[in-house]
Amino acid sequence: MSTLFQNVTAILMDADRTVLQNAFVAVKGGKISSVGPQRPTGSYDRVIDGQGGILMPGLVNCHTHTAMTPMRGYGDGHDLHSWLNDYIFPVEARWDDRAIRAAADLGLMEMIASGTTCIADMYTRMNIMGQAVADGGISANLCNGAIFFGQEFSPAGCGDCQKQEELFEAWHGYDDGRIRMDAALHAEYTSTPALWEWIAGFARQKGVGMHVHISETRKEHEECKDRWGKTPIQVLNDHGVFDVRAIAAHCVWTEPGDWAIMAGKGISAVHNPCSNLKLGSGVAPITGLLKAGVNVALGTDGVSSNNDTDMFEEMKLAAILQNGVLQDPLALAAWDALEMATVNGARALGRNTGCIAPGKDADLILLDPEAPNLVPCHNACNNIAYAAHGSNVKLNMCRGRVIYENGEFLTIDREKTLREVREYAIPLLFGK
Amino acid sequence: MSTLFQNVTAILMDADRTVLQNAFVAVKGGKISSVGPQRPTGSYDRVIDGQGGILMPGLVNCHTHTAMTPMRGYGDGHDLHSWLNDYIFPVEARWDDRAIRAAADLGLMEMIASGTTCIADMYTRMNIMGQAVADGGISANLCNGAIFFGQEFSPAGCGDCQKQEELFEAWHGYDDGRIRMDAALHAEYTSTPALWEWIAGFARQKGVGMHVHISETRKEHEECKDRWGKTPIQVLNDHGVFDVRAIAAHCVWTEPGDWAIMAGKGISAVHNPCSNLKLGSGVAPITGLLKAGVNVALGTDGVSSNNDTDMFEEMKLAAILQNGVLQDPLALAAWDALEMATVNGARALGRNTGCIAPGKDADLILLDPEAPNLVPCHNACNNIAYAAHGSNVKLNMCRGRVIYENGEFLTIDREKTLREVREYAIPLLFGK
Repeated sequence: MSTLFQNVTAILMDADRTVLQNAFVAVKGGKISSVGPQRPTGSYDRVIDGQGGILMPGLVNCHTHTAMTPMRGYGDGHDLHSWLNDYIFPVEARWDDRAIRAAADLGLMEMIASGTTCIADMYTRMNIMGQAVADGGISANLCNGAIFFGQEFSPAGCGDCQKQEELFEAWHGYDDGRIRMDAALHAEYTSTPALWEWIAGFARQKGVGMHVHISETRKEHEECKDRWGKTPIQVLNDHGVFDVRAIAAHCVWTEPGDWAIMAGKGISAVHNPCSNLKLGSGVAPITGLLKAGVNVALGTDGVSSNNDTDMFEEMKLAAILQNGVLQDPLALAAWDALEMATVNGARALGRNTGCIAPGKDADLILLDPEAPNLVPCHNACNNIAYAAHGSNVKLNMCRGRVIYENGEFLTIDREKTLREVREYAIPLLFGK
Repeated sequence: MSTLFQNVTAILMDADRTVLQNAFVAVKGGKISSVGPQRPTGSYDRVIDGQGGILMPGLVNCHTHTAMTPMRGYGDGHDLHSWLNDYIFPVEARWDDRAIRAAADLGLMEMIASGTTCIADMYTRMNIMGQAVADGGISANLCNGAIFFGQEFSPAGCGDCQKQEELFEAWHGYDDGRIRMDAALHAEYTSTPALWEWIAGFARQKGVGMHVHISETRKEHEECKDRWGKTPIQVLNDHGVFDVRAIAAHCVWTEPGDWAIMAGKGISAVHNPCSNLKLGSGVAPITGLLKAGVNVALGTDGVSSNNDTDMFEEMKLAAILQNGVLQDPLALAAWDALEMATVNGARALGRNTGCIAPGKDADLILLDPEAPNLVPCHNACNNIAYAAHGSNVKLNMCRGRVIYENGEFLTIDREKTLREVREYAIPLLFGK
């Protein structure tokens, strides 16, 4: 299958910040084959006229919990303790595979329709999520955040260690690497040094990445310092957890000493501004992280703390939040936010995507040039960072395959998914 | 014309916070005639089956500059001085009536498609904006923010005083009050006591409201205190500016002493969180204002400082921003944000809208129940505040008249407007 996009405004996300007007972008198989101002030679199975609309790399959501969709808005307005204990945990105890699949498909629909082509997902029953991603067509780094509270750790006695192995065997490398698994710790405060060292060794041995919640709340950060005399980044680093490609979700309370470690070891920070604001966690020190040389990517977190997964919304909030809190209109630029949502995300997940260049995965989204909120377009990057919505996405292509176009899902059965969520998952989980 | 909505989840925005499942809402002429769980008697010209979707009051955008659409994203990334002097002012010097009309229509399209039914608009050439609103079908409080820097003030020698009179004569009361004019000062720092007193008298005499930019930036707020020994709220109040229904846009740097005056005199604060963050102005003290008893409404500001006018985005940011900055997940609730965008906005503009009840203006929006980001719907208010997007609006009804439905504009010619903006306004304003 080959596709030629023509008459598009292509934001390449290259180091020169190139925005190419009237561009041609060719795709052969799963890769971008050419980019330029001239029509490439050869014939294509399909030619897509963008009518001047923006073509950009698909968005990379580096921290989410896709299958939490049934809990969207459930228990909002309660404090964290009540929300978890009275709402989320009782529901999560009722999951079965069929409900997880329906919930995962619903979550993927929302993300695909709003321009996401690659995710890092941490949740439960990831074997089912793997099948949903396989069928849905996007790329994903899947992980199961390991938790262990016991005194006597042994890998055989830790169910979450087994799950790392199972996820690796089941899905790592699927479809030429479209699905990968990352090793994962849920967080420092939900695990012990024995687990840290086991999982660090697992990741090194398997050659996979690492995904951990880091310093999301002040309480978690300060209690870790009380416990170990070190921050979460520091203590986990001392135990080898970050000796592989690693992503640290949230980083709201990280300190300059952490940033130096993160920059030095290549640990990516994943900024989740909507979730951090909604839950009262605070505002992550993104300008500090960037100045220290840390790779900063973006995530939506799950829909029970966001409550949607529109990465355009996340990009805008990332772009404007630092300005407001630092009282500096130039604290972050539109380009910074675009990088977080594309190239930086690709780097965080170890993927060959996030920019438009020959040889890159053909993960591309095309936006509607006639949407009132995108008119006029003095500067495509400003329009994307500050004015665009997920609903402006007309077409989503993952690895050369169109999976969403003009409101239609081409890999997921919309009606069946909504029916399964409403008639099976909701009654199972909520008894209604 | 009469319309019956059936099979809707109606958020009434009443004091009891009623959300009525399987509701019937009837509209006769421009007013809501009945609301309840039973089908009302009588026949209707049109019956609209909401298929379980949310029906709620149309959103009230209490501070915007609609016709600035051609400057969307223009000059972003420059400091305020350069942005104004090198980008905005030179462009604004080139306006003509035809370009303003095209720009206004484009702005109205964006707002109508995302669920706004009533606005407070401050800009230039408001006579043209009046015609755009008259044709577009929404309700509007229009104003021309008066500026006067001279030493010798006389109403006859102040063009902006003449414009208040002209706007009053041309549009105040049009179509049974669908369009009104408010008197307006641009701000304390762009005017003098003589103008304040003239405009206060004008507003009292004509029985209109007042719209002023207040304490948007720290610089403006502190310089006012240096100049007069008082804050903008205090000094303008001393000169009678707030002796009528009044709206104070921004209020980022207002102080407890200001809030007491605002609560006592009924001055509404208009929160513009996107604009305040993007421009680095800061975070308005919304919880403080609310606790002091001030009526807080919401606005998008103009698209050159936002850069869109989706009130759902503004509602969500309002709901989550206080939580994050105050590190309190319960600082503001979903309901608070809904009130700001509906009933509080109606109160700010002195309008009989913002809730669903018999006798209220039939300003209603219907949302898509099948949108993945709105499934499931445990709590309609949580979904609206945290998960909904403007693009979920399927139908926009203003004063009983459907002006937008399923992506089609029924009062504005979409193609003509885009053509006029691209082929007339942009070349005129930007020479390209």
